[in-house]
Amino acid sequence: MSATHNDDRTAIIDQTIAYCWAIDERNWPALHDIFLPGATAELGNGTENGINAIVARISGVLNPLDSSQHLVCNHQVAVNGDTATSRCYLQAQHVRRNAQNGRNYLVAGRYEDSWARTPQGWRVAHRRLVVMWTDGNSRVVRGDESG
Amino acid sequence: MSATHNDDRTAIIDQTIAYCWAIDERNWPALHDIFLPGATAELGNGTENGINAIVARISGVLNPLDSSQHLVCNHQVAVNGDTATSRCYLQAQHVRRNAQNGRNYLVAGRYEDSWARTPQGWRVAHRRLVVMWTDGNSRVVRGDESG
Amino acid sequence: MSATHNDDRTAIIDQTIAYCWAIDERNWPALHDIFLPGATAELGNGTENGINAIVARISGVLNPLDSSQHLVCNHQVAVNGDTATSRCYLQAQHVRRNAQNGRNYLVAGRYEDSWARTPQGWRVAHRRLVVMWTDGNSRVVRGDESG
Repeated sequence: MSATHNDDRTAIIDQTIAYCWAIDERNWPALHDIFLPGATAELGNGTENGINAIVARISGVLNPLDSSQHLVCNHQVAVNGDTATSRCYLQAQHVRRNAQNGRNYLVAGRYEDSWARTPQGWRVAHRRLVVMWTDGNSRVVRGDESG
Repeated sequence: MSATHNDDRTAIIDQTIAYCWAIDERNWPALHDIFLPGATAELGNGTENGINAIVARISGVLNPLDSSQHLVCNHQVAVNGDTATSRCYLQAQHVRRNAQNGRNYLVAGRYEDSWARTPQGWRVAHRRLVVMWTDGNSRVVRGDESG
Repeated sequence: MSATHNDDRTAIIDQTIAYCWAIDERNWPALHDIFLPGATAELGNGTENGINAIVARISGVLNPLDSSQHLVCNHQVAVNGDTATSRCYLQAQHVRRNAQNGRNYLVAGRYEDSWARTPQGWRVAHRRLVVMWTDGNSRVVRGDESG
């Protein structure tokens, strides 16, 4: 395993982690340093096309919340020249303190990502979120207290 | 800390992670690339002797489930020539959607592993699971809705 | 990214992890290898001044428990010569089996740390715990079954 390979692996894991910190801090401009401008993402119910659609989707879910925490671990990375794939496990807690019937909603699953090397570093070309289990009150994210 | 030492450490953590992905994907043949043929494992209630007994034990718990997710983190590795020890924290979610009284059962604890270097890479010689806490509905894994 | 930089990064993450194992094992002397003698820590309700105050605070919370597990992930490290800053996500489970109304209390948040390089290695100069969400029975840590 060459030093370069390890640097690529570390850089991709660091980007995966930087994504989590950025969205949990509602730092939407930072996502332009994570995704390609033309990146696509399957986050449930179809595909988001382009960085602006991705940011709109994620911010639409997270902005109404009081807090969120996206934990990632079990990282696996495969580098192939100037492209790479990675996957990791995710536990995303969503908190809305005035939600009835529980203020927490946890979504757990995996991110399956493909990457491109750019002059500015590794960028996500495609992300797929696969939900594996949930816990708590789903209305925390729906923002819907009715029914 | 030499480059070789870091490579060993990374390889052992990668194997620990590969184990999790393999069992959560029910990829039982992959466990032959994680454990020695003569590996032993304390997973609760006695010791499993040999890779086949280990696979039988784990697959017996996980095959009936709809999903599982084994998160590992807080890795510590000590390499001593051609052997090593490691430990990590574990959170294992077990999901059975038709279980009554809750579909999730979380088992959290630590893996305490000893390793052997082989021509094919690092392999687990002995694994010990220590359960630290649980949450949710234990009948998800017992598969027992009665009583 | 130089080898030295990666070694510092790894060393700081390892220290962050060693802290977790130490406190979960109630190995209080080990904390003297994590914090500077004059370290300060904001762990809620004011600032602890010095290693002895920090140990007293943490041991006071954890000693009455049957078990605890402090998971850390999403590590970010910035090294600047002989000082550094880091942050990570934390999920700390607290277990007291005879607690009424639930034996688990989970505190999740982030550690924001500043570090100093010493001849013995990296040491925490200041730690700040920011709680992001909780789950379960808070009386597990208060040790208060009344009211």
